[in-house]
Amino acid sequence: MPPTDAPDSAGRWLSESGPQSDVVISSRVRLARNLSGYPFLTRASAHQRRDLLNACRARIVDADLGTPVSWIDLNESSALDRQVLVERHLISRQHGQGKNARGVAVSSDQCISIMVNEEDHLRLQVLRSGLQLQDAYGRANAVDDALERKLDFAYSPRLGYLTACPTNLGTGIRVSVMLHLPALKMTGEIDRLRRAAKDMHLAVRGFHGEGTEAMGDLYQISNQTTLGRSEEQILADFCEVVIPKMIEYERKARQALHRDRGPVLDDRVWRAWGTLCHARLLGSEEALYLLSVVRLGVALGRIKQEGVSIETINQMLILTQPAHLQKMAGEPLDGAQRRKFRADFVRSRLGDRS
Amino acid sequence: MPPTDAPDSAGRWLSESGPQSDVVISSRVRLARNLSGYPFLTRASAHQRRDLLNACRARIVDADLGTPVSWIDLNESSALDRQVLVERHLISRQHGQGKNARGVAVSSDQCISIMVNEEDHLRLQVLRSGLQLQDAYGRANAVDDALERKLDFAYSPRLGYLTACPTNLGTGIRVSVMLHLPALKMTGEIDRLRRAAKDMHLAVRGFHGEGTEAMGDLYQISNQTTLGRSEEQILADFCEVVIPKMIEYERKARQALHRDRGPVLDDRVWRAWGTLCHARLLGSEEALYLLSVVRLGVALGRIKQEGVSIETINQMLILTQPAHLQKMAGEPLDGAQRRKFRADFVRSRLGDRS
Repeated sequence: MPPTDAPDSAGRWLSESGPQSDVVISSRVRLARNLSGYPFLTRASAHQRRDLLNACRARIVDADLGTPVSWIDLNESSALDRQVLVERHLISRQHGQGKNARGVAVSSDQCISIMVNEEDHLRLQVLRSGLQLQDAYGRANAVDDALERKLDFAYSPRLGYLTACPTNLGTGIRVSVMLHLPALKMTGEIDRLRRAAKDMHLAVRGFHGEGTEAMGDLYQISNQTTLGRSEEQILADFCEVVIPKMIEYERKARQALHRDRGPVLDDRVWRAWGTLCHARLLGSEEALYLLSVVRLGVALGRIKQEGVSIETINQMLILTQPAHLQKMAGEPLDGAQRRKFRADFVRSRLGDRS
Repeated sequence: MPPTDAPDSAGRWLSESGPQSDVVISSRVRLARNLSGYPFLTRASAHQRRDLLNACRARIVDADLGTPVSWIDLNESSALDRQVLVERHLISRQHGQGKNARGVAVSSDQCISIMVNEEDHLRLQVLRSGLQLQDAYGRANAVDDALERKLDFAYSPRLGYLTACPTNLGTGIRVSVMLHLPALKMTGEIDRLRRAAKDMHLAVRGFHGEGTEAMGDLYQISNQTTLGRSEEQILADFCEVVIPKMIEYERKARQALHRDRGPVLDDRVWRAWGTLCHARLLGSEEALYLLSVVRLGVALGRIKQEGVSIETINQMLILTQPAHLQKMAGEPLDGAQRRKFRADFVRSRLGDRS
């Protein structure tokens, strides 16, 4: 079943409760691969791109990936369907907006996606809820092995996997986590964390990638360089040192807020809750902000409402985005219509209290 | 029973539902009187003021006012009790803050108050819920007559009742209504109304008098001149021409908002409701603003909640003020404590939904 057929669910990686979900929204491992015998896409003709797409498509569908996958030809998909995939983080924004022959294979649980003809010939990613990078890595490796049995990947004994961009050269791996850091934001410590991340050659992006850093206090942290280190080294450093440290900082900041500014914190989380439960018009940025504040309230046990968990909020972060709303509505909605539909949807999900 | 003994009720004039209560909060008729044989207060010695107070007190308590009254010696009252009387509009701010011998008699239903040694020797006022100026006037006249049987009022056949300030000379009457004009405020037409009021020699003040004009979209409209016109002329003009016109303007503006900007209006009133029902800290100005918006929602039938009527909101406008909160708490509260107590009180009154 293609993911765009079920617009009111957000995929297993967000619906289930993962480890450390108070701070970690999701984990992602992405591998970049290119086929030998074909030029990189920057130098490929339209004909070669089409050949590549067909070759990959047939072999991906044919490969034993341990889970059923659906193939989506992005050149034949509607703009809305492509936007749904972007909002679910199953394809990149660039892949959604591209013009050339391109596609994506998506597993039925939406944890695995394999983009064809994005920046590299193949980019396979595994998404997991909460902090499950090792699990995601294991799964990505298994998928990689299954694909390698069908496809001949460009590999140099000296450089490792060859990739279109040198930052991916070597292992071709990118590991990233989406962190929810509202307390570090409130206390102003977030800037110190950003500087530390930069020193460790980590990239810090926002919920929707580059340029959306502050939205909803959601930060995507990922490794930047892949050459000269083994996948295991990169992963161990990231999973066992960097991310646990960040989680610890955020938790300490939350405890400090709770202890020193309890009434102010309560006021903030309950006002956000009140607005989400009662507003009749909600913009996407405001919804993201309010959901983020409520998420903090739920994580700290300040907000306890039947049927409202961290996972409820995680799902709503995805489902309140423009393309998802239009899928749910079953028709195109302009900005004003979306604000109304979004507010109605949020109220219904939180248990309409008015 | 002195009014400050029942801090969680706001007096009958606010608890009951008066005519035109969608727009008119309350009506007030005030008469200024001075005793012959005593100088005006600006020229009275401390001894004369004390004499005046004792003479008035004895005769007010003795007079047949048709309702039991309590006497409150403001020089012996606590600052908090005086502030409660100010917040209930039973005494003026100046009277509450004064230093000289002064007092007030308050009827048990809190509809009548008689200030002694305010600007004039006596200022008697009758308050009514909604638009009930004629009724208030009738009552004020009856009280005036009863007092005149006991006290000798300074009166000139040419000028009428003599008063400390020439604007009160003649009838000594001031009629005023507290109007709720949120729609005229939203549409910007309020400025036109203010100019028209000025042309008609009407004073426009805020909920708390001079300088609080915009707070909660509450406007107190009153006549300014009293000389050369009979009480009946002043009243008829005010009741039958001026105020009905203003009520009509506000209602038309509400209908226009409802018709042309329904979703925006709904969003605004429900967000205000959501914040009132969920905030953990509420300042007095914000509470006034939010209650005003919710009042509009209730008046237009956009907000229908069990146990929440126009009267509920009217009462809360009074009860959420600083002195009332401290009376309810039974102890002094600083600003931060009041914000918390106010939020808790508002949630409990609206039926805690969290």
